[in-house]
Amino acid sequence: MEMGRVGRVRSAFSDLRSGDAALLFRALPESLRVDILLTLTPPIAADILEELPDDLAAALVMQISPESAAPIVQEMRTDEETDLLQDISADRAEQILQRVEERDASVARSLLAYHEDSAGGLMESDFIAFSEDMTASEAVQRLRQRADEYEEYPASYLYTVDKNGRLVGVLSLRALIMCQGETPIDSITTRDVVAAPAEMQGQELIKLFRRYHFMAIPVVDASERLIGVVTQDDALRFAEKDADEEMLRLTGIVGGDEFRDMKLRSRSWRRLSWLSINILLNVLAASVIAFYQETVRAVIALAVFLPIISDMSGCSGNQAVAVSIRELSLDRIAPRNFFWVFRKELAVGLINGLVLGLIVAVIAWLWKANVVLGLVVGAALWINTLVAVTIGGLTPLLLRRLRQDPAIASGPILTTLTDMCGFLVVLVLASHFVHLLH
Amino acid sequence: MEMGRVGRVRSAFSDLRSGDAALLFRALPESLRVDILLTLTPPIAADILEELPDDLAAALVMQISPESAAPIVQEMRTDEETDLLQDISADRAEQILQRVEERDASVARSLLAYHEDSAGGLMESDFIAFSEDMTASEAVQRLRQRADEYEEYPASYLYTVDKNGRLVGVLSLRALIMCQGETPIDSITTRDVVAAPAEMQGQELIKLFRRYHFMAIPVVDASERLIGVVTQDDALRFAEKDADEEMLRLTGIVGGDEFRDMKLRSRSWRRLSWLSINILLNVLAASVIAFYQETVRAVIALAVFLPIISDMSGCSGNQAVAVSIRELSLDRIAPRNFFWVFRKELAVGLINGLVLGLIVAVIAWLWKANVVLGLVVGAALWINTLVAVTIGGLTPLLLRRLRQDPAIASGPILTTLTDMCGFLVVLVLASHFVHLLH
Repeated sequence: MEMGRVGRVRSAFSDLRSGDAALLFRALPESLRVDILLTLTPPIAADILEELPDDLAAALVMQISPESAAPIVQEMRTDEETDLLQDISADRAEQILQRVEERDASVARSLLAYHEDSAGGLMESDFIAFSEDMTASEAVQRLRQRADEYEEYPASYLYTVDKNGRLVGVLSLRALIMCQGETPIDSITTRDVVAAPAEMQGQELIKLFRRYHFMAIPVVDASERLIGVVTQDDALRFAEKDADEEMLRLTGIVGGDEFRDMKLRSRSWRRLSWLSINILLNVLAASVIAFYQETVRAVIALAVFLPIISDMSGCSGNQAVAVSIRELSLDRIAPRNFFWVFRKELAVGLINGLVLGLIVAVIAWLWKANVVLGLVVGAALWINTLVAVTIGGLTPLLLRRLRQDPAIASGPILTTLTDMCGFLVVLVLASHFVHLLH
Repeated sequence: MEMGRVGRVRSAFSDLRSGDAALLFRALPESLRVDILLTLTPPIAADILEELPDDLAAALVMQISPESAAPIVQEMRTDEETDLLQDISADRAEQILQRVEERDASVARSLLAYHEDSAGGLMESDFIAFSEDMTASEAVQRLRQRADEYEEYPASYLYTVDKNGRLVGVLSLRALIMCQGETPIDSITTRDVVAAPAEMQGQELIKLFRRYHFMAIPVVDASERLIGVVTQDDALRFAEKDADEEMLRLTGIVGGDEFRDMKLRSRSWRRLSWLSINILLNVLAASVIAFYQETVRAVIALAVFLPIISDMSGCSGNQAVAVSIRELSLDRIAPRNFFWVFRKELAVGLINGLVLGLIVAVIAWLWKANVVLGLVVGAALWINTLVAVTIGGLTPLLLRRLRQDPAIASGPILTTLTDMCGFLVVLVLASHFVHLLH
């Protein structure tokens, strides 16, 4: 009875593609997941763990014993295995590694040394390389012998290495299939190959994929030895994760992903670390108003327009920030294009500031039947839109020049400066014309 | 002399990978680009046009005659060709198509019918398919005959089709290389194949690639006929473009990309169309202050705290917006998870609102030596942070349920509602305790 049930669960999962099996698995109630995972054969359990979001996979593995985890972890693709071992506690990772085959464990330990967003961290260390002195038919023979294993390899590229394991070139399966058996593979190897050093950053790798459209890029260590392969699939996943994280950083969620099923303390803390800096900057900006409180008391309508000017300048500036971050990430601009960006934003600021200034001027004039009030708030919004779009456009360039992350710091810098400037312009103008504003 | 120069330019470009050739080309002064492009052989010019950003490629093609453009366009990969023809004027596209070979022109015309972000618009219509009644050695034979052409094909998948061109299954080059010559390809064809209908949206395609890690996905028409292939490379480029556009939409840049080398009128207009709605919403929110102007006049310190509360609630709410948009795009939440998101955000709002409220309360208390003022602004920020994170977290879900784009509309809805609520809470509390706040 019990055996029949186990068999049915196993076959339900094994009939599915691993992506679908992971979806089914995630649809299970949380209380059942550990038991079901242990019911499955290690290869299928490994497929599911590979497809689950990293944080969920790590949480599951922490709930099962190292003895049960080891055979599953051993079946995982090396890059996924490394991600998982990095996401669980170091103690538990070590306990699991002590229980996998020595050869696999030492590979995993060496991969753990790379940063997860570097070529070394993204690569798979399973690949097929032939010695440069083989013939095409010897190579095909070897592929046939290792057919099962080879089916697991992600890309169709084969590599040629010298006797020290140094990368000689790339050998396409197409070239291999289309040449005569006695052809030395050396003669069909493409030597002009783009390889990534293990330390290369993920973003740089994406640029290589974007520029050359390779299906995979080989990764080499400091002695040019072939140590792994990054596939387009790895690049796609990194690019999506990177874009998502940039979006989150733009709104001040730092330290990587936030998912709502993470611990409350960590979610709260990540958001707060940025908010608490922001509130101090906000107080700094608003202190400008404190210096002019008598002007505000005399012209109380200003209390209505101050938040509008602050908010609208923030919006205009953030548009310019987003365009700059985008153009930086696509290499369409660089910090040296400072004055070009300045001129381009100045032109937009002049037009948009004029339009927004007119709208707010007409509203103020109609509301208080005071044309001077309209002119003061309209002119202030015009000037401040100009300031906001130029600061917004240029801040990401400056931060990039200073080797800081434009996505996380641009927003707070922008809003503090534009708020201060906006409040100052309104209040200086208003205090100058205060006798006309009653 | 002139010939020698042309030869040197040609060989300079032809020695490079197309990605590098495009980089070199973009480094040329704009005034030279058209002449250089016409100097190159059509295949190299086509490679460069494929690698240039779409808007630059379109601008170049508009500057050369249809007679010069036709042989270049004809050499482009079909998906890139279609993108280009969609980006230039319809007249010019037709003039060019009249000058390319009839067969290519009719393929291009049929591809132009698909939306550029659909599977039909992203696919390449060049692929290799074998009739299901062939043997492995016949298939290999045909591959060898068409080796040159085949080298151009992007992925390693081969397809099997029936006599009506309907997709039967996928045939991996690996399987072909590893079986005996007389094996019918039918027997090594995988029939359980994931194919995309031509109308499938790019975002759905990305999900298929993310779930199954295919190197390519075949595209079929309404009668299940194989009409093209979308590669992982196409998916990577679409995913990057999509993520970038989402970031731009979040800050209110609508209608696709903005690059600073576009026309000023169009850049200004795209930003304004969103800002002008936003300013009206801002005025609406700030009008709450107008109703309480006597309270503000009595307690002028409120004029300092109103912008702070508005801005901080906006920040907290935008964090929740970003997390929801992210979780929606990863299918980790759906509109039906409304109450779960509500509870999760409520918890964060309680904690973060308390911390931020305490900070602002202490500042107000120290500044004006008035503990009631501190309590009023602190409590208001606490309450409004709660409101902002729940509205921020839930708005994207509601917009998705209403089939609207969460990225573009969440921000304005959020800030309007939270500003109104924030101003109201501060001013109602303050007017209640106004005798204690002097």
